[in-house]
Amino acid sequence: MSSVFSMAPFFESENKSRVAVIGSGNWGSVAAKLIASNTLKLPSFHDEVRMWVFEETLPSGKKLSAVINQTNENVKYLPGIKLGKNVVADPDLEHAVTDSNMLVFVTPHQFMEGICKRIQGKIRKDAQAISLVKGMEVKRDGPSMISTIISQKLGISCCVLMGANIANEIAQENFSEATVGYRENKEIAEKWVHLFNTPFFSVSSVQDVEGVELCGTLKNVVAIAAGFVDGLEMGNNTKAAIMRIGLREMKAFSKLLFSSVKDNTFFESCGVADLITTCLGGRNRKCAEAFAKHGGKRSFDELEAEMLQGQKLQGVLTAKEVHEVLCHRGWLESFPLFATVHEICIRRLPPAAIVKYSEHTHQHSRASL
Amino acid sequence: MSSVFSMAPFFESENKSRVAVIGSGNWGSVAAKLIASNTLKLPSFHDEVRMWVFEETLPSGKKLSAVINQTNENVKYLPGIKLGKNVVADPDLEHAVTDSNMLVFVTPHQFMEGICKRIQGKIRKDAQAISLVKGMEVKRDGPSMISTIISQKLGISCCVLMGANIANEIAQENFSEATVGYRENKEIAEKWVHLFNTPFFSVSSVQDVEGVELCGTLKNVVAIAAGFVDGLEMGNNTKAAIMRIGLREMKAFSKLLFSSVKDNTFFESCGVADLITTCLGGRNRKCAEAFAKHGGKRSFDELEAEMLQGQKLQGVLTAKEVHEVLCHRGWLESFPLFATVHEICIRRLPPAAIVKYSEHTHQHSRASL
Repeated sequence: MSSVFSMAPFFESENKSRVAVIGSGNWGSVAAKLIASNTLKLPSFHDEVRMWVFEETLPSGKKLSAVINQTNENVKYLPGIKLGKNVVADPDLEHAVTDSNMLVFVTPHQFMEGICKRIQGKIRKDAQAISLVKGMEVKRDGPSMISTIISQKLGISCCVLMGANIANEIAQENFSEATVGYRENKEIAEKWVHLFNTPFFSVSSVQDVEGVELCGTLKNVVAIAAGFVDGLEMGNNTKAAIMRIGLREMKAFSKLLFSSVKDNTFFESCGVADLITTCLGGRNRKCAEAFAKHGGKRSFDELEAEMLQGQKLQGVLTAKEVHEVLCHRGWLESFPLFATVHEICIRRLPPAAIVKYSEHTHQHSRASL
Repeated sequence: MSSVFSMAPFFESENKSRVAVIGSGNWGSVAAKLIASNTLKLPSFHDEVRMWVFEETLPSGKKLSAVINQTNENVKYLPGIKLGKNVVADPDLEHAVTDSNMLVFVTPHQFMEGICKRIQGKIRKDAQAISLVKGMEVKRDGPSMISTIISQKLGISCCVLMGANIANEIAQENFSEATVGYRENKEIAEKWVHLFNTPFFSVSSVQDVEGVELCGTLKNVVAIAAGFVDGLEMGNNTKAAIMRIGLREMKAFSKLLFSSVKDNTFFESCGVADLITTCLGGRNRKCAEAFAKHGGKRSFDELEAEMLQGQKLQGVLTAKEVHEVLCHRGWLESFPLFATVHEICIRRLPPAAIVKYSEHTHQHSRASL
């Protein structure tokens, strides 16, 4: 071969993208596995995927990152699933991100500000981010989007990926879908789509970061409502009606907060599909079912302690946060379902109120005949 | 009282609307009950609701219509539920409709043409119709809408009412919703809304007859797909993804057939909510689950005979009809889910193919990187 040809791999290698996954919980590990299967196949990516591991010492006395690198399995958060030999666990956050131009954030949302501070100024100038983090906070004056925090703290653009994504089902390679939300650059969004997309994980993109990200948070409020219906044994009609009203309020709330949010986003995996998955399974639904079965006599605090080993339910917190926004902006009457979920959670209304508000919403129109 | 006042009830009575319900099966009886509770309350309607009963002799030797009028219960199709004393069962079709200006059609779809022929020229000139009939046929050149058949045969306008409406759950007065689709006259649509709406049955209207009516038919094809996923035990992610893809194909197919169909119709009860109900319960889902569990080795004909006492599954028939339209118009590639459901039903593909087609739909976009 001529020297021109022998130089080719060198240049090519320089232009290849490098991926780091920041987070190694259940969903982080599955994300690393998906990505690693693609970097092996796609010539525009380096094979290796760096996965930052929040270091833990296992009962065996070994370090989690070392065990992942030895066994190619996250024995603690995704046992029994091989991640791909090109996944390299790295307990050093700065080191894990330093060479990568594609940063995948997938940690609990409360760690995000701290992580961004630690890697500020230590990432590549051409880096791009994507957030898989669900459960941003909805503050009084509006939501504090994780994608915005990442963009602002790191000075880079940030997409989001959300969808009907129960991590263990994806790890089993059962078919599912996801949605990438992007702000302006369709080309970057497509690069993320190709990095995640597999025959069993079908990814598409929409130009609507806020819509996609809000879906991932607001659905948990609707799941609480669906759980109440299950606990009251009101049947599939009622559950479907409550899910539909919930989807409508998710859409209306998102559009009031961000005029850029698109209706069609709610037809994507991040919208209707994630809502369905969350309202069929999921711990928000399950705890709310138990709450309603007890007639609201046991508090969510008690039930969480018993059923979730003290973890807090995202949906209950989000319902409270959304309620504050509704009060603050004078929107309460337009969001009867969101408002009622919170009132039930704090035991100001009984669980059966979840369907009763509808009577009020129609009073005006009935009176006009 | 003066003579002016004593005349008032006479004129008022003349202007009041009279309702006839054509059909008295499970859903017809519940519809009559809903309507009868409202005509008692609303001053613009006569109290009495006539319900045409396809006469049957019960095992006791008594006539069904006579028993309904004696007991105020449809003992055969909705036992245990009082219809309201102002519901009058009438076995004479022509007599049942003759005085009414609001005709509610709710019979099996195969009887509709015959019924229209029998009452042609025998209805009031100012009559309005609404169809609750699901399961129209989708012929090669497009669907044969029940609302269109009624309009054309009777020369009157026809709205439709569809939604997440399991009759027995509505009879129990559990909360649910429905959608009225209308063509032009918003005022008539609102009259139907008021006639059906109750605190536990929340009705809204959209200007989209075809969209609403097509939802009621196409959802059954998606329910077959959802049943396959259940039978294959692929989990909630996959089921949600298949339901979402199904909803997208329902929307795209309806819009290709009728450019007037609106996206937002699919966010209404007739769209996403009815789809959820049908994919959670329902016999289409159930039989398809059994079909997949048997690995497609037993035909739908066999399973129907066993599980439905010989009744035919609407979803299997509709999938076949839709497939013919897709072939005829060259749309097969745009509707992988609809096409695959039919191919599985006729055992040209295995049940697992329901998720496999996605691989093909993404080949182009993946190849472009």
